[in-house]
Amino acid sequence: MTAAEGTRTMDTTRQLARHVLAAWLDDVPDDVRHEARRALVNFVGCALGGSTHSAMDIAIRALGPYTGLPTAIAIGRAERYDPLFASLLNGISSHVHDYDDTTPANYIHPTSPVASALFAYASVTPVRGDDFLNAFILGFDVVSRIGNATYPAHYDAGWHSTGSVGVFGAAVAVGRLLGLTEEQMVWAIGLAATQAAGIREMFGSMAKSFHPGRSAQSGYMAALLAREGFTSGVHGLEGPRGFAAVLSARYDLSKVTDGLGTDYELRVNTYKPFPCGIVTHPTIDACIQLRAEHAIDAADVDAVRLRVAPLVKDLCDKKHISRGLEGKFSAYHAAAIGLGRGRAGLAEFSDEAVNDPLLRGLRERVESIGDPAVSEDGVVVEVTLKDGRTLTKVLEASIGNLKRPLTDAQLETKFRDQATVLPADRVDALIARCWTIDGLDDVGPLLALAVPAA
Amino acid sequence: MTAAEGTRTMDTTRQLARHVLAAWLDDVPDDVRHEARRALVNFVGCALGGSTHSAMDIAIRALGPYTGLPTAIAIGRAERYDPLFASLLNGISSHVHDYDDTTPANYIHPTSPVASALFAYASVTPVRGDDFLNAFILGFDVVSRIGNATYPAHYDAGWHSTGSVGVFGAAVAVGRLLGLTEEQMVWAIGLAATQAAGIREMFGSMAKSFHPGRSAQSGYMAALLAREGFTSGVHGLEGPRGFAAVLSARYDLSKVTDGLGTDYELRVNTYKPFPCGIVTHPTIDACIQLRAEHAIDAADVDAVRLRVAPLVKDLCDKKHISRGLEGKFSAYHAAAIGLGRGRAGLAEFSDEAVNDPLLRGLRERVESIGDPAVSEDGVVVEVTLKDGRTLTKVLEASIGNLKRPLTDAQLETKFRDQATVLPADRVDALIARCWTIDGLDDVGPLLALAVPAA
Repeated sequence: MTAAEGTRTMDTTRQLARHVLAAWLDDVPDDVRHEARRALVNFVGCALGGSTHSAMDIAIRALGPYTGLPTAIAIGRAERYDPLFASLLNGISSHVHDYDDTTPANYIHPTSPVASALFAYASVTPVRGDDFLNAFILGFDVVSRIGNATYPAHYDAGWHSTGSVGVFGAAVAVGRLLGLTEEQMVWAIGLAATQAAGIREMFGSMAKSFHPGRSAQSGYMAALLAREGFTSGVHGLEGPRGFAAVLSARYDLSKVTDGLGTDYELRVNTYKPFPCGIVTHPTIDACIQLRAEHAIDAADVDAVRLRVAPLVKDLCDKKHISRGLEGKFSAYHAAAIGLGRGRAGLAEFSDEAVNDPLLRGLRERVESIGDPAVSEDGVVVEVTLKDGRTLTKVLEASIGNLKRPLTDAQLETKFRDQATVLPADRVDALIARCWTIDGLDDVGPLLALAVPAA
Repeated sequence: MTAAEGTRTMDTTRQLARHVLAAWLDDVPDDVRHEARRALVNFVGCALGGSTHSAMDIAIRALGPYTGLPTAIAIGRAERYDPLFASLLNGISSHVHDYDDTTPANYIHPTSPVASALFAYASVTPVRGDDFLNAFILGFDVVSRIGNATYPAHYDAGWHSTGSVGVFGAAVAVGRLLGLTEEQMVWAIGLAATQAAGIREMFGSMAKSFHPGRSAQSGYMAALLAREGFTSGVHGLEGPRGFAAVLSARYDLSKVTDGLGTDYELRVNTYKPFPCGIVTHPTIDACIQLRAEHAIDAADVDAVRLRVAPLVKDLCDKKHISRGLEGKFSAYHAAAIGLGRGRAGLAEFSDEAVNDPLLRGLRERVESIGDPAVSEDGVVVEVTLKDGRTLTKVLEASIGNLKRPLTDAQLETKFRDQATVLPADRVDALIARCWTIDGLDDVGPLLALAVPAA
């Protein structure tokens, strides 16, 4: 709170509100627009993939009785809900497999909270595709910028920024589509700030996926309240008791506003090849490569030593696990599936896989060491075989990393792998509309394609 | 996070869950049960008083279109809503006048988040009065205990604990009535922890009243999700990335569990005589007394000097204000109404009162000084009159303070003053049922009395 106070100005919130209301898609460079479409293709695929997860069934059983008029679409579900509840459900489904996008500079999954709210809104209100893409780009940018301004102190303290920061993106994106005035947008940001929540203690449980869902819903609600005149403090971000001061020991709010409309956070977004915590990706990638290069059989592995960044060690130090969701943040499980199965799809993070005796046995043989010399993008894996040989793989960047991004075709493949709730022709049409979303007269028909038969 | 870690155990959450499921009203001493009834009398009166505030109309206009089946009662409103939305509305109405109760040791208003959820629940599900009072006492205790465990670091950092801590009380109270298992109660507490939110930057705006409302709704939702098996981290309170570590620089979690079932936080609860921030009460009380004792005319006041505790200075330092809600946290307005009107009812915190030229003129003549020698319960007021005389009042404790509590009769008067939406005979019946709530076969009929004619 002290070190960075010099970079606080008393109008960050208002500057941001003004920008969000003034920015227009025509001024967004083509590469950013394309990256936005890629993010949406990835998002819709992930939401379809997560739509049948038990966390969704449970949330619907628990809260469905309280939903309002069944007007809105929750991606991948046949039943309709009110749009606030649909926002929550989109957030859970799109994040529950930990397969959604990531801005590696701040470890946020920015698309989930923003697009979850926007698609729910667009399922009940006609929205032109260019308006939609514009609002999405703004919401994404706001999330990642506030993330940058408070990283690493905010994340290190134990906040799950996808929730605690994501809420701002949903608020401004929906607020933009609602046509808020400047004052109302300031209130929407304030009402988002005062709903910011989500802690990392929930990692490994369903509550992690609840975070972007609740952010989407809370941000949407903030915009609705602001439109009707529900007042908030006007310095929600920068005030002495505002978001940054209260939720982050250090921050630099110039990162929220500097380069608005010129620098776009979508340019530093990444898409996951594996449905788990991004910090485990280098380990998985290296182990898959080692297995392929040396034709390793799991039975021949004597010991595995991982050298990872200290943050990665901290985040992924669960060895004794029994649930699929726990496997998504276990460096031990990451090594075990890479070496034992040579792949890391949704099946490798099921409860069954986590309890597979072969994988459990491998996990027991893995040691994880935090090493400041290893970057968060990399890993050093040493496998000692029972015949005495030691195999080493030094990886600087895993597939999916900014330096090795998934191609458009790979994103489509990932989409198809997850879209099993829809017939194949529907999948083709849905992917095509996502790639051309900014040309649509209305986003509604796109969403109708994402609804399976009842 | 460091200083207090020695007092962290790894099972605070589970111990709390066990207690909440095992405790029963027969073991609660009579004085505590009576204090619980007093809290509920005060709460229902405040909810009636706030039910017609514009913040309520706005929230209903904004979010009413998304409410579910209209089954639940929002106190003081004729229309019905789903119980989650009714929880939110009860929280807003009961807190919007800053007239609800306060535990002075941690500056929390514990009843609002807990009772808002419980009454919404009881309006859609039959609940025996003794079950209701038991759940309320538990929820209240949990809120204030978690408040004590994290005070003052949590509050000082800028959290509005009524929101950020209140959510736990709603979760355990509703969870108790839902009959959760121990594991489910642990998850409910975790799901509350990960929804903890609400920052002090919102003071002086409608968003402040949103905090207990959203906590009530989020806690209620946490209990519903947990019942169906939505998992959370199991160390929501005490884990290394749990509520205490993430939201409080220092904490002592032994205060959550020590003396559970023996020491009751309701014994240190207070009720406000004035509808504004409790830290302004000594100033109001002292100024009313000075005015009466010396027959002061506002026109004769030359200067007013307040010496208050530094925290009070910090909280109430708004001199140039234009909205009633801002007046509730202005030491300047507090002095002005005490000296200028000799009373501090709801009318003194309207937009009209704040813009009254006489009161505005008085505020300009007030100086506020933070003085570590003055306690948060007290004030030293020096009034210099135009004739040169200086009048001084040293107050150790204002009316409503634990040392000068409101009597039952005063609480009834306060209730009647606020219950203007109901006919007088209905008010009598409602007060009578609140005093005898633990003898009721069902709380529903009590709530039916709190619904005005459509």
